[in-house]
Amino acid sequence: MTLTTAVIGLGSMGLGAALSLARAGLPVRGVDLNPAPLAELAAAGGIVAANPAEAAEGCEAVFVYVVNAAQTRAVLFGENGAVSAADPGTVFVLCPTMQPDDAIAIADDLAQAGMLAIDAPVSGGATKAREGAISIMASGPSEAFDRTQPALDAIAARVFRLGDAPGAGSRMKLINQLLAGVHIAAMAEAMVLAAKSGLDLATVQKVITQCAGNSWMFENRGPQVVSGDYTPFSAVDIFVKDLGIVTDTAQGLGSPVPLAEASLELYRSAAAAGLGREADAAIAKILAQRAGAKLP
Amino acid sequence: MTLTTAVIGLGSMGLGAALSLARAGLPVRGVDLNPAPLAELAAAGGIVAANPAEAAEGCEAVFVYVVNAAQTRAVLFGENGAVSAADPGTVFVLCPTMQPDDAIAIADDLAQAGMLAIDAPVSGGATKAREGAISIMASGPSEAFDRTQPALDAIAARVFRLGDAPGAGSRMKLINQLLAGVHIAAMAEAMVLAAKSGLDLATVQKVITQCAGNSWMFENRGPQVVSGDYTPFSAVDIFVKDLGIVTDTAQGLGSPVPLAEASLELYRSAAAAGLGREADAAIAKILAQRAGAKLP
Repeated sequence: MTLTTAVIGLGSMGLGAALSLARAGLPVRGVDLNPAPLAELAAAGGIVAANPAEAAEGCEAVFVYVVNAAQTRAVLFGENGAVSAADPGTVFVLCPTMQPDDAIAIADDLAQAGMLAIDAPVSGGATKAREGAISIMASGPSEAFDRTQPALDAIAARVFRLGDAPGAGSRMKLINQLLAGVHIAAMAEAMVLAAKSGLDLATVQKVITQCAGNSWMFENRGPQVVSGDYTPFSAVDIFVKDLGIVTDTAQGLGSPVPLAEASLELYRSAAAAGLGREADAAIAKILAQRAGAKLP
Repeated sequence: MTLTTAVIGLGSMGLGAALSLARAGLPVRGVDLNPAPLAELAAAGGIVAANPAEAAEGCEAVFVYVVNAAQTRAVLFGENGAVSAADPGTVFVLCPTMQPDDAIAIADDLAQAGMLAIDAPVSGGATKAREGAISIMASGPSEAFDRTQPALDAIAARVFRLGDAPGAGSRMKLINQLLAGVHIAAMAEAMVLAAKSGLDLATVQKVITQCAGNSWMFENRGPQVVSGDYTPFSAVDIFVKDLGIVTDTAQGLGSPVPLAEASLELYRSAAAAGLGREADAAIAKILAQRAGAKLP
């Protein structure tokens, strides 16, 4: 029996998931405000839906790939929302990064409507999304995982099962985003200091990736500073949002996060300087400006 | 022709280098104030020297593995210093982390005394030092590298040649230490937030090491917070020193390093709380105390 799927929100991550579902031979519908990813999905054999309700009608697994909790609520419960048309028992896979409390509240509202939900934020970036090789930090009832297994296998290399209750997936994602956001900022800080020191940045990239100062983000984002090409894989604005959620959550828990705060200041300054849509590594430009350093 | 070597300073890194030299069949003398590593070196076939001068007499390659620039000057130029007894043309390999300006000044003074010098800070930790598998970020004259090649091969998996002038090795090492020190602090901040969130720390360690939030330090030091075992590989005091050098150097260059500063505050607080000799990951205890979190 084939699992019928839908993806609501075809940004780089959602489109990657939808294309991976199509490649795996699963029927997939897509919905987005932007026509370009809809055309790409259609060319890959997917079906274009006019709105979330149309996408969810008769579907068994609905992946929500919008940006935040407010958009998630809108596409689920708003006008032409997915829940209005979905069959009872449909599994909603919630992929946005959001406050754990929001993930819990949305999952509860879905349960009230007779639906199942997985709190399922993702990690890995646009390239891995297209390869069907992201990681998912997921919590929710076993029944929801069982029903959506073929779809999860199609989009992810690894699904970390973090228990039956929504919230745990989002909590783990925030830990990942704290580290990812700080590591990009540390890379930028290190590259600007290296430039001021007169070191060749390509050499710095080569040496550090083989030393104890390496990070996944240094390896992945460092080349953007070395080349001066800030074409976004993931934009500055994403970390303005995600580190904002991290610091808000940490404040609510009374847990000090001085590095996340120092990093968030850099992302906010970059956004204020008009760099919000550039690659997140463009925070290096803010530090370079403050240092009077020249970057490539 | 066999290269005769000496190692001044047999802390965990220096002892590892000396044992690696002995294992490679090179004659090696060692000197330290602590009898334990001297005994271990002697058992491995090395020769115990009473002071730096005795160690350096008739030696071709002298590795300096003390803690900082002041100690380097003392063992080279002080009472019973190595330079007083070394033959002209002896190569001094300077491994401590120090200000680039100090490395340059010491190399210049060695040149004045008719010696050769390599500015050669190392990365990799105690285990890799014993395996002869550290990385060396090195700059100095080609002649110095040519003469010491068998010894460098014995102690290092990788020697990054960063030019003919002293200073470049130390500059690169500071970039590595900035990143390493910040990444340990980010790990600690993330683990404490995870504990406050109710996540299982062993699960956090497992998930993050497979996601984009990973770093060399998260992978290496995270298990210390998960287990609660802060037996030092590298102590809090090392990063009090090294991030102090980073922030001083950055200030001198006018390059902002907000993350290094926020991290240094944590190492300093840990040292002030009596944790200076514990593993660097023990800065997590400071954050846990501020958060009212319980760590293992």
